[in-house]
Amino acid sequence: MENFSFVNPVKIIFGKDTIKSLSKEIPAGSKVLITYGGGSIKHNGVYDQVIKALSAFDFYEFSGIEANPHYETCMKAVELIKEKNIDYVLAVGGGSVIDATKFIVAAACFKGDDPWDILSKQARIERALPFGTVLTISATGSEMNSGAVITKAETHDKLAFGSSKLYPKFSILDPEVTYSLPLKQVSNGVVDAFVHVIEQYVTYPSQAMIQDKFAEAVLVTLITEGPKALETPRDYDVRANLMWASTWALNGWIGCGVPEDWATHRIGHELTALYGLDHAQTLAIVLPGVLSVLKDQKADKILQLGEMVFGIYNNMSKDERIDETIRAIIHFFEEMQLKTRLSDYGLGQEAVDAVSNRIKERGWKLGEKENITADVVKEILTLRM
Amino acid sequence: MENFSFVNPVKIIFGKDTIKSLSKEIPAGSKVLITYGGGSIKHNGVYDQVIKALSAFDFYEFSGIEANPHYETCMKAVELIKEKNIDYVLAVGGGSVIDATKFIVAAACFKGDDPWDILSKQARIERALPFGTVLTISATGSEMNSGAVITKAETHDKLAFGSSKLYPKFSILDPEVTYSLPLKQVSNGVVDAFVHVIEQYVTYPSQAMIQDKFAEAVLVTLITEGPKALETPRDYDVRANLMWASTWALNGWIGCGVPEDWATHRIGHELTALYGLDHAQTLAIVLPGVLSVLKDQKADKILQLGEMVFGIYNNMSKDERIDETIRAIIHFFEEMQLKTRLSDYGLGQEAVDAVSNRIKERGWKLGEKENITADVVKEILTLRM
Repeated sequence: MENFSFVNPVKIIFGKDTIKSLSKEIPAGSKVLITYGGGSIKHNGVYDQVIKALSAFDFYEFSGIEANPHYETCMKAVELIKEKNIDYVLAVGGGSVIDATKFIVAAACFKGDDPWDILSKQARIERALPFGTVLTISATGSEMNSGAVITKAETHDKLAFGSSKLYPKFSILDPEVTYSLPLKQVSNGVVDAFVHVIEQYVTYPSQAMIQDKFAEAVLVTLITEGPKALETPRDYDVRANLMWASTWALNGWIGCGVPEDWATHRIGHELTALYGLDHAQTLAIVLPGVLSVLKDQKADKILQLGEMVFGIYNNMSKDERIDETIRAIIHFFEEMQLKTRLSDYGLGQEAVDAVSNRIKERGWKLGEKENITADVVKEILTLRM
Repeated sequence: MENFSFVNPVKIIFGKDTIKSLSKEIPAGSKVLITYGGGSIKHNGVYDQVIKALSAFDFYEFSGIEANPHYETCMKAVELIKEKNIDYVLAVGGGSVIDATKFIVAAACFKGDDPWDILSKQARIERALPFGTVLTISATGSEMNSGAVITKAETHDKLAFGSSKLYPKFSILDPEVTYSLPLKQVSNGVVDAFVHVIEQYVTYPSQAMIQDKFAEAVLVTLITEGPKALETPRDYDVRANLMWASTWALNGWIGCGVPEDWATHRIGHELTALYGLDHAQTLAIVLPGVLSVLKDQKADKILQLGEMVFGIYNNMSKDERIDETIRAIIHFFEEMQLKTRLSDYGLGQEAVDAVSNRIKERGWKLGEKENITADVVKEILTLRM
């Protein structure tokens, strides 16, 4: 096991009818900004529950945060915060709203010249406004970590940042609020969480038994409960297990003391930034390519994944078991109604070239061995045309 | 899954050669009290590493904290804290030293008449001195939770308490410091951690898939790595996995949203208080009795334990699989060199009567269904004579 240092101070409030408890979590007298997305919370009852719980507070609203949230949108919220002297933010939504809120609370306190430096130059975040979240989509894990991804619409840059100042003070996870989600968002969320775990698990062995078994626990939960959520959307325990699995997929604990990859995410972000694909769609395309091209380097962990998660441990050869495991992943993505090839989204050679050129321009070397260069990215994406 | 609310703010610093980092964790200028036990840390190099790391601090020492730490001992440390105006405590040891330190930092700030009320009346803890830990024995999980157990030597009362004010600020877990432990302490630690998980897992099904699989992950790690630690005491990864497993066995996360039992611990504490048995010895005696007497109520989870942890899932009847699982637990305890019957420790009917009388006096009804009365305790212990 590798050395590590870790803390995660987020308070989780989980279960039915828990949104009302947010009034006890936000300090009395706070001037609150509620951030949210396109307004679906006004149709599923979440907005009403939040407003009722905030009745004793002075609050404002900022809506219209898009998927793959834009820097430009976030900066409008920052203006509102300054204008109204907001001192607490409540994000009500999924990963996009929470990611945007992390950038907003950091940018509102940023003392440098240009808040874009937080993303482009990883400028240090000295202070941020406190914020809590009411989660409405199980997917990104942003509700229990301190990282976020923001896109500059102007330049198609989709970049990640993080800071220990950006943990939510609390996150309210009521699985019932996910009943009314469009099935596409359920599928995307399950696949996103699945790939989060894979990025922290399918690298090389580091004898971290607890972390490996926790990762396998989350993966088995996702492949078991994910398809059920599409068939029986109002099954509470299915939704509860998926919500908790998605949080654990990226709350940091399973990544303690083990190598991490993240190549699939980095390549996927470029596909989203250039062509507007959903985040999960990009992951479903890229991951099988990463595992195929890196199959020698990742052999031990792909075999472990096959055995412990997909039950692939018969007397096939190792090579056959690796291939069978990659096929099982593709089958799972398809079962979750996601297409897994560039051509399924009308993309071809030009996308392969464009993404690998972006990686080359940035000089990135991705993956746990930092050996996925632009040329390797081209090989990966060519396999997924 | 049941509703829950949870946070665990402890910073974990894990790995080789990490004790030196404590100088960065304790606020500069703090007046530190180091608490420790019988002095083994002076022979295994831990004391020297701690003193070196604290060279820039003004510090005092309080040694002599015994196993099953005494209220009377703790109160001497409280006197020293007041006399020297200590404002930070560093616990260097295993669960006993850390538990004692939790009581010490609470009692040092206690405004009531009698600090014993913290235990006997669960008096509210409004404030406590901050403290960190350097863990030297993998066992109790006290390094990452906010609870503790203290014994009043005068009256043989062994009682638990806890408070959100009692999380360590940080805990340093260097698996190498456990190489030199007596094998008996290794055995005790593994069995203690094993039973911690069982208390949060073998109750009744609550469809909490993640928590169940995490519990199984910790149990499998303990039964796989525990015996190896006795055979090859200086295997780093074995020690690292046991250390992390023991922490996870009682850091609260696996107990989120599931019922909890704790009858084995409550009965075991009485055996320790009355007859001085090691904590783990009492658990190894009591647990098989609890599972045997409650086998109908706990049937589903005993079967799940048998299948997922001990690989018992052939075509035996359910009753046979339950009995086989209880036998597997006893076998594991014996493999870890612990005796599992009262008679192994020279105890008989008088102990059965004495413990069940204490439970009757206290009016306790134990277990996840609160149906383990003094009479049931007598039945449990009679099975374990």
